Amino acid sequence: MTFDTLAHALATGADATANRAFLATQHSADIAQFLNDHDAEIDWRVLDLLELSRQAEVLGYLDRAMQVELARSASRSRLAAVITAMDADDRADLFNALTEDEQEALLPALAQAEREDIRRLASYEEGTAGSIMTSDYAVLVPGLTAREALERLRLEAPDKETIYRAYVVDADRKLIGSVRLQDIILASPSTPVEKIMERNTRAVGVEEDQEDVAKKIARYDVVALPVVDADNRIVGIVTHDDALDVLTEEATEDFHKSGTVQGLAESVRQASIFVLYKARVAWLVLLVFGNIFSGAGIAYFEETISAHMALLFFLPLLIASGGNAGAQSGTLMVRAIATGDVRMTDWGRILGRETLVAGLLGLTMALAIYGIGLWRGGAEIALVVSIAMVIIVLAGSLIGMILPFILTRFGMDPATASGPLVTSIADVVGVLIYFSIARAVLF
Amino acid sequence: MTFDTLAHALATGADATANRAFLATQHSADIAQFLNDHDAEIDWRVLDLLELSRQAEVLGYLDRAMQVELARSASRSRLAAVITAMDADDRADLFNALTEDEQEALLPALAQAEREDIRRLASYEEGTAGSIMTSDYAVLVPGLTAREALERLRLEAPDKETIYRAYVVDADRKLIGSVRLQDIILASPSTPVEKIMERNTRAVGVEEDQEDVAKKIARYDVVALPVVDADNRIVGIVTHDDALDVLTEEATEDFHKSGTVQGLAESVRQASIFVLYKARVAWLVLLVFGNIFSGAGIAYFEETISAHMALLFFLPLLIASGGNAGAQSGTLMVRAIATGDVRMTDWGRILGRETLVAGLLGLTMALAIYGIGLWRGGAEIALVVSIAMVIIVLAGSLIGMILPFILTRFGMDPATASGPLVTSIADVVGVLIYFSIARAVLF
Repeated sequence: MTFDTLAHALATGADATANRAFLATQHSADIAQFLNDHDAEIDWRVLDLLELSRQAEVLGYLDRAMQVELARSASRSRLAAVITAMDADDRADLFNALTEDEQEALLPALAQAEREDIRRLASYEEGTAGSIMTSDYAVLVPGLTAREALERLRLEAPDKETIYRAYVVDADRKLIGSVRLQDIILASPSTPVEKIMERNTRAVGVEEDQEDVAKKIARYDVVALPVVDADNRIVGIVTHDDALDVLTEEATEDFHKSGTVQGLAESVRQASIFVLYKARVAWLVLLVFGNIFSGAGIAYFEETISAHMALLFFLPLLIASGGNAGAQSGTLMVRAIATGDVRMTDWGRILGRETLVAGLLGLTMALAIYGIGLWRGGAEIALVVSIAMVIIVLAGSLIGMILPFILTRFGMDPATASGPLVTSIADVVGVLIYFSIARAVLF
Repeated sequence: MTFDTLAHALATGADATANRAFLATQHSADIAQFLNDHDAEIDWRVLDLLELSRQAEVLGYLDRAMQVELARSASRSRLAAVITAMDADDRADLFNALTEDEQEALLPALAQAEREDIRRLASYEEGTAGSIMTSDYAVLVPGLTAREALERLRLEAPDKETIYRAYVVDADRKLIGSVRLQDIILASPSTPVEKIMERNTRAVGVEEDQEDVAKKIARYDVVALPVVDADNRIVGIVTHDDALDVLTEEATEDFHKSGTVQGLAESVRQASIFVLYKARVAWLVLLVFGNIFSGAGIAYFEETISAHMALLFFLPLLIASGGNAGAQSGTLMVRAIATGDVRMTDWGRILGRETLVAGLLGLTMALAIYGIGLWRGGAEIALVVSIAMVIIVLAGSLIGMILPFILTRFGMDPATASGPLVTSIADVVGVLIYFSIARAVLF
């Protein structure tokens, strides 16, 4: 059996036993992918074949939009049961995606513990550590022996996201250390947890940016990081799989910004036409007005151009080269700043190297274009075009390199500075450089 | 004490005890960052203050270039000792970064087991599962009881990258399942491993692309995935932290490609001028020749332009808008294909929606530009410019959307299709559309 034949079997109402046996061998993530591709009615028929805990797991892997669709098509008691069985962080996210009316309708159907947990997790601002953490973590007190700690973790394991690291807290729930499951197993049974725990446990604040948290998990190669409130009391943990999702999400956001697409949080495949339009229109219109300056630059040099129409042949090529060189250096800088490879204080050193690299690139490009200049317009035009090329590539590269630093300096996101924005600025500069040189040499 | 005062303390040769105490509280990743920022001489002085196992851990976190620098400045016996203590995957990567002569010099100083392990891991091609896997994984045989399995893992824990999941193999080392440490702890001590293991353990092939492996770890939220050879024998594991590094690396590569920067594997901060030049020059020159077509297009319409020089004012703005719209849709598609949000088979549905979105964007842009057309050139020019804008934005968007699919279809990497390449193609198309419409309307 495959997922393709499952769809067929469900449609024809065939024997549920075979379907159930097939689903038992499949990973919840794969079942979720199948559900994402089908409608709510089919989806509920699949979920009916699974145990409640498995239903909750599959639901956790679904796209947010499909989760909401399923939540809306379920009875309140059924939804309450499956939501109760979900991981704490997944269910808080789903809860946040519902309308206020739907939230109000759902809450009374939940037990008090879940109700409070959801309310608390859902209250943290989008994009913070609090918004991605889970409350399913294991805590220990320092006085327990290794044997007692192991017994405790054994009992708690089924409800916890991870027991590979447990957090040690004092009587006020303040974080004082953490201990790895493997160290508990390795210790002799009577050793107190206090003796085997790591005291320098790194924690993150509940308001901390989710991207910084994810980067710390990547940096320290840990399975999870504890989240603490202002009083150093543990309130949750962020796990490695959530860190991975956050880093992918943030890379997508940077990628989109570099192409001047703004604020498209959801899937491209599922976004509505209006959402896609809205994500693109503002920058597109803004850049048109930026390009008016290039047009004005050309209009300013109308006489020069009328006298030497051959100059026009080289216009796209020269201004595009400045833009392309700028896009290259901008892309390099934006990504290097995002990954932490380059820091703000490095700009001086980078500037020197970029000048050298761009100079070499400009010379190469000038050589490439000199012959074409000779052929299309003679020696003078070839000279103008070659000189202009060196200066334009240099200028474009430096604009691309510096702009991300300037945006960062003023508290703006540098990611926008790698694509069309750099190209538009380089265009204006290119027009002015080209025709200024032309006028100086040819008249 | 801080890392700043540590640098000072090392320079003045102050009391080693205080430095040692400070380093004991710091994470190896943070120590490595300090070492990355200093030279080999200072670095060895810091490493001298650490135990061998800690030295190896810090070395594992270092940038590859700094690792090599340190390896070159160490005596052969010292290098052999620290390399032996490193994680198997880290040391194989370091080994691969050395010259053949250096490798030959190092191998005899190592014990046979390490020598063979390094040779084996280093033999896998860059970018495959084999190249990022480690050989420090835990295996169990199915006949062991839970108590015996736990005892075995306890003994092996210090040498293994993770014991949170152990792999169950038959007499031929063929993978037959896997078992989580927490399930071993939860089971009654006499239960055989066979009864508690998961049989449907997902494995990856040793030749599989590292990006696919990382995506599977992200998809299935696992701590590690086993790697098997063609006969289903386990040869290593890839862990979640390596998956995270791979995904970050691949995102950087895609980001660079979108800005037509090719093959820059290393850090921008550390790359040499020649490496940076080489990464950029090919595309830059290639695109110049692409832009010659735009120039030729303009030259072809020279008469139209001479008669209506006002048309030139709108040239940058129109062709840039086509390029910008193309960059937007290209960026969206490239990233959606990379993350798996959009699949090859979706292109038809996406094309329909993109046409609608681009049509709306084009109309908005035409409205924005109509008034400026009236002001600069009168009613006829305004009409030409507005019609051209709608068609150019539509054409640019569709080129940006389709190009990634075409490249993928022909087995090429789509990432290049989001930046300057799309812009250059859109430029040519923009020139032809604009002046064709102008000639038709104005003459």
